[in-house]
Amino acid sequence: MGEPSRPRGFNRRRLLLTGGAALAVTTTLTRCGRAESATAATGFGSNTEPFHGAHQGGVDTPAQAHALFVALDLVATPDRAPRDTLASVLRLWTADAARLTQGRPALADTEPELAARPSRLTVTVGLGAGLFERAGLAHRRPDSVTELPAFSTDRLESRWCGGDLLLQICADDPLVVAHTARVLLKNVRTMTTQRWQQRGFRSARGSDTSGATMRNLMGQVDGTVNLRTATDVDRLLWDDGAGQPWFAGGTVLVLRRIRTELDSWDELDRTSRELTVGRRLDTGAPLTGTHEFDEPDLDAAENGIPVIPPNSHVALARHRHDGERFLRRAYNYDDPPTDATTDAGLIFAAYQRDPAQQFVPVQQRLAASDALNPWITTIGSAVFAILPGAADGGYLGQSLLE
Amino acid sequence: MGEPSRPRGFNRRRLLLTGGAALAVTTTLTRCGRAESATAATGFGSNTEPFHGAHQGGVDTPAQAHALFVALDLVATPDRAPRDTLASVLRLWTADAARLTQGRPALADTEPELAARPSRLTVTVGLGAGLFERAGLAHRRPDSVTELPAFSTDRLESRWCGGDLLLQICADDPLVVAHTARVLLKNVRTMTTQRWQQRGFRSARGSDTSGATMRNLMGQVDGTVNLRTATDVDRLLWDDGAGQPWFAGGTVLVLRRIRTELDSWDELDRTSRELTVGRRLDTGAPLTGTHEFDEPDLDAAENGIPVIPPNSHVALARHRHDGERFLRRAYNYDDPPTDATTDAGLIFAAYQRDPAQQFVPVQQRLAASDALNPWITTIGSAVFAILPGAADGGYLGQSLLE
Ligand code: HEM
Ligand code: HEM
Repeated sequence: MGEPSRPRGFNRRRLLLTGGAALAVTTTLTRCGRAESATAATGFGSNTEPFHGAHQGGVDTPAQAHALFVALDLVATPDRAPRDTLASVLRLWTADAARLTQGRPALADTEPELAARPSRLTVTVGLGAGLFERAGLAHRRPDSVTELPAFSTDRLESRWCGGDLLLQICADDPLVVAHTARVLLKNVRTMTTQRWQQRGFRSARGSDTSGATMRNLMGQVDGTVNLRTATDVDRLLWDDGAGQPWFAGGTVLVLRRIRTELDSWDELDRTSRELTVGRRLDTGAPLTGTHEFDEPDLDAAENGIPVIPPNSHVALARHRHDGERFLRRAYNYDDPPTDATTDAGLIFAAYQRDPAQQFVPVQQRLAASDALNPWITTIGSAVFAILPGAADGGYLGQSLLE
Repeated sequence: MGEPSRPRGFNRRRLLLTGGAALAVTTTLTRCGRAESATAATGFGSNTEPFHGAHQGGVDTPAQAHALFVALDLVATPDRAPRDTLASVLRLWTADAARLTQGRPALADTEPELAARPSRLTVTVGLGAGLFERAGLAHRRPDSVTELPAFSTDRLESRWCGGDLLLQICADDPLVVAHTARVLLKNVRTMTTQRWQQRGFRSARGSDTSGATMRNLMGQVDGTVNLRTATDVDRLLWDDGAGQPWFAGGTVLVLRRIRTELDSWDELDRTSRELTVGRRLDTGAPLTGTHEFDEPDLDAAENGIPVIPPNSHVALARHRHDGERFLRRAYNYDDPPTDATTDAGLIFAAYQRDPAQQFVPVQQRLAASDALNPWITTIGSAVFAILPGAADGGYLGQSLLE
């Protein structure tokens, strides 16, 4: 449960505020002072995130530079109950993720050298809503884990939707993500089929050590408003077990694949692009402010015209009451296009206690009138119960299956 | 032509030796001493590679962490000679690459903020063998730029082969690669169609600052033996213009997409895997040595059995005479599989004066009997004339077209 390679005084909450870049600052400062840890001498490869604990990593962990999301389906086998297959998958993943995240090779790792520099690797496992029924666990499905309603702006393609199981792998090094995916996917290849994979990235760790919020490929500062304080995280992110005691410490992921229509976006002049979102492109400040973290003033008007348009993305996305807030942890994607100049967008990942109370009302407002809608298209959607963390010696999903 | 953001005493040749990681060392050391440049304060994002000069960047540039290779075909238009279309493409790319590589937004850049941290961005442009004829320039095609012979182990898929134009974009930050690709591809979208894109990566910059050679996804240290000295680079890499004066300073890229058969590779025991290549998996040392850069002794035998098997990859790949050597600058790929556990391999990029003298004889020996063959499959192939560098004020391909 320790964080062996972190400099002393490391502050998880502070990191949540500024993203991975802050870690680089911390490391650099340490590096230039006393060498407090192995990190100082060898680069960030030796940095680790804890695996065991009340919650899984990869959720309120400061976002790593690279992410891979894989959805899998359980293979139906005549001689084995789906529930037992599920338990095998979760045990195998736990054993190997516990090692790999700490920089140790997986059991029977055929490429152990690729495990040596975990670079803040996290492995996060989730279960799709449909799986509970399939595995004879319908009575244990949290009410919060259910399919989303249809939204008018959805243009869903089945190849980006659903899945029995989610495997989310994040690290600051793409080589680590690839090796981890290889190990975990080959472990379960007889018990699962892969449904889809989505690869995402943020700016490389160390490129900017000023602690700036990430930018998406539309050029916007993206991720400013988020869950930040320990109180918010406990209240709005982690399940408290009130509905399903086994789920205490878990959370619910809404994963949306949102294509950005860059061809037409690029035709829009800069002022219109800023009005569309309600924030400036250079600093990310609200149109009513000067710094990124200034509070937007949705009532401000000039000559009777609202400074931040009421149908701008932030005006509509802003929570109408406190309980609508959730944790956003999006990644950019940029894949080979089939019939266009670019195939890029956002792997929009929102984590929360209950999507029906948090994600859904916001998405409904946005679908109805978000000024950004002409330039974004939701083509994939999935909901997963992110399991509570595993105790040392235990396995992911143990409280569900035992 | 300057290298404004580099610490003084920066040594290009030394970097060639150890790859991108060495740059991180340099920067760190500088950072801990006097702050000599903007780099020191803000991270490696502000690092630049020169654009103008005798040669294009991205060839003997220490390999960046991320690479995108895009092949395009010229669109035939009734009202315009292909040669003129080609000139337009090359002028547009030159103008924008000259700016983007130096951390300045492209002309009419719609996302200028994404250009601010180039992270050693290079843009490298090449012409396919067939294009010379199509553009009425058959008489100016260097003899060295021609299709490769077929090799017995090739399993080529047309979707990974050929192309009129190559656009190679490398940087230490995937966000920079994505933005640069967006700008350069949209500039030419009416004049070209995209044929294929291949994305590759190495270990993240800053993960390891010890200067280690990269590892591929088979776990091997890959890139040990390479062109390193200035003499070798001048003699074996850059064209001297003897055949086609306009091509002086250019080079020829052989780009092969090689899938690695990880499922069966992982079944092989460690000793067999080391005998297959002729080097150790842990250190990358030859089986006759103890350190990575020890010279392999191909004559050494124990009880009459060669220590490095004669059909091992390195024994066969080793040059039979000096003129067979070339620059290797490979990237890993790991893409969503269609019908397998993993779709991974190497984007094998070999740069040289003349593939017929350098790449081809080596590949012929390997195709005939490389012990590694059962675990690697070449599924893509292309050859490009990498243009000479552009002079300040000039454009890529100018010596060909004027
Ligand atoms: C490609 C699609 C999207 C893009 C490019 C995008 C972009 C942005 C940007 C630039 C901001 C302002 C900076 C910030 O606070 O992070 C923002 C804020 C926000 N977005 Fe999005 N967004 C997208 C989709 C969504 C979706 C699907 C939702 C939820 C249904 C959402 C919910 C929010 C929320 C809650 C905020 C904070 C609003 C506030 O309280 O100020 N966004 N988004
Ligand atoms: C997926 C395919 C391949 C893999 C995994 C691979 C792997 C390796 C490894 C591990 C080494 C030893 C370390 C080093 O010197 O870099 C090596 C060396 C080498 N490889 Fe490959 N290789 C592949 C394909 C090729 C191809 C297609 C060629 C050329 C036709 C080639 C040419 C060479 C050469 C020239 C050397 C240096 C040999 C020496 O002088 O010691 N390789 N390769």
